[in-house]
Amino acid sequence: MYKDKKCVIVLSGGLDSSTVAYWAKSQGYQIYPIVFKYGQIAVKEVYAAKKIAENLGTSIKIVDFSALKDIFQTSSLVNRDIALSGEFSEAIIVPFRNAIFLSVAVAYAATVGANEIFYGAHDSDVAFYPDCRRDFYEAFEKAAQLGTNSNISISAPYMGKEKTDLVKAATKLNVPLELTWSCYTDGEQHCGQCESCINRKKAFQKANIADLTKYEY
Amino acid sequence: MYKDKKCVIVLSGGLDSSTVAYWAKSQGYQIYPIVFKYGQIAVKEVYAAKKIAENLGTSIKIVDFSALKDIFQTSSLVNRDIALSGEFSEAIIVPFRNAIFLSVAVAYAATVGANEIFYGAHDSDVAFYPDCRRDFYEAFEKAAQLGTNSNISISAPYMGKEKTDLVKAATKLNVPLELTWSCYTDGEQHCGQCESCINRKKAFQKANIADLTKYEY
Repeated sequence: MYKDKKCVIVLSGGLDSSTVAYWAKSQGYQIYPIVFKYGQIAVKEVYAAKKIAENLGTSIKIVDFSALKDIFQTSSLVNRDIALSGEFSEAIIVPFRNAIFLSVAVAYAATVGANEIFYGAHDSDVAFYPDCRRDFYEAFEKAAQLGTNSNISISAPYMGKEKTDLVKAATKLNVPLELTWSCYTDGEQHCGQCESCINRKKAFQKANIADLTKYEY
Repeated sequence: MYKDKKCVIVLSGGLDSSTVAYWAKSQGYQIYPIVFKYGQIAVKEVYAAKKIAENLGTSIKIVDFSALKDIFQTSSLVNRDIALSGEFSEAIIVPFRNAIFLSVAVAYAATVGANEIFYGAHDSDVAFYPDCRRDFYEAFEKAAQLGTNSNISISAPYMGKEKTDLVKAATKLNVPLELTWSCYTDGEQHCGQCESCINRKKAFQKANIADLTKYEY
């Protein structure tokens, strides 16, 4: 039904945003993925996103925002002096990160002539990450429409679903999960101990789907 | 009344944002200015902003977002292949630029512990630039509050005023206007012919205040 419509997807190279990208492909969208280097320790996710885009038959816009590293120094995803935790902690939050990414996605959409932006927020994030909530992206969409004088749409197709539902969807959509990177560290393999690895493990377990990810622990 | 409160100011080095910065100083704010390199031809504005910040007794955060140059290729402020015009044209618009800057300002505010963000939008911009309108920044403020789970405030202190009123205010506030840079080009002096130079000239004329800016034409 959306045949030939263009969309911009904020692709992080993780399981969630990759599933969103394959969902959009299944809906017939022309996909313009965008990924950001923002000083994250897990820079491997950028290369994962690139591979996912190639696998989708498109190319990715890699935006080098390494200048944000200083500004994001309060987050353990950027600052190696702050310990990473296996459970959610305030230190994991990268302040207003999704808004920065979505703002650039809006500008990119204007440049490529896309009218829809998708990102990977879902219900399992809602309790912890304010910029993964529906009321946030709805308010942001309104600001984007006013700020560009357009009817641009911003949404999270898996809002209302849990991460385990994304694992199920990814399996149905044949997402090459082996190419995705969820870990907050920059090891050879997923560490298996950070919050993101633990959430990934749990989501597979709950979905009762074999997790082929290689974890250090 | 605002003594010792911190604010982040999106400072472009032009007349408007510089006036906002001096206004904030007059109100007793501790000022955290931020400026962006985004591939603009007028990179001189970044150095103007740096001087303004020094003059205010503070230091500026210069964010190198040169990676945006590609994404902003539709704008004559970035792409030298698009002619600059003396009157407003759609090609001047840098899509959603203020939202990108404000998003980063929100993250910076979280890092430095500021609760207010000011930018230089005013009524003379309203007809042309959607991201200089009150309804835009009010919607954006709501998104910022939801996306950071805070009561961060975003406003444009000179909304409701014309550019000529900013020239009058700048004079009263002793803004060193000779340090500001409004021109969209990168000449030795202000070109005097681009939309921004023409607006600057008109604002001084209408305010009946001597314009000491050196213009090429």
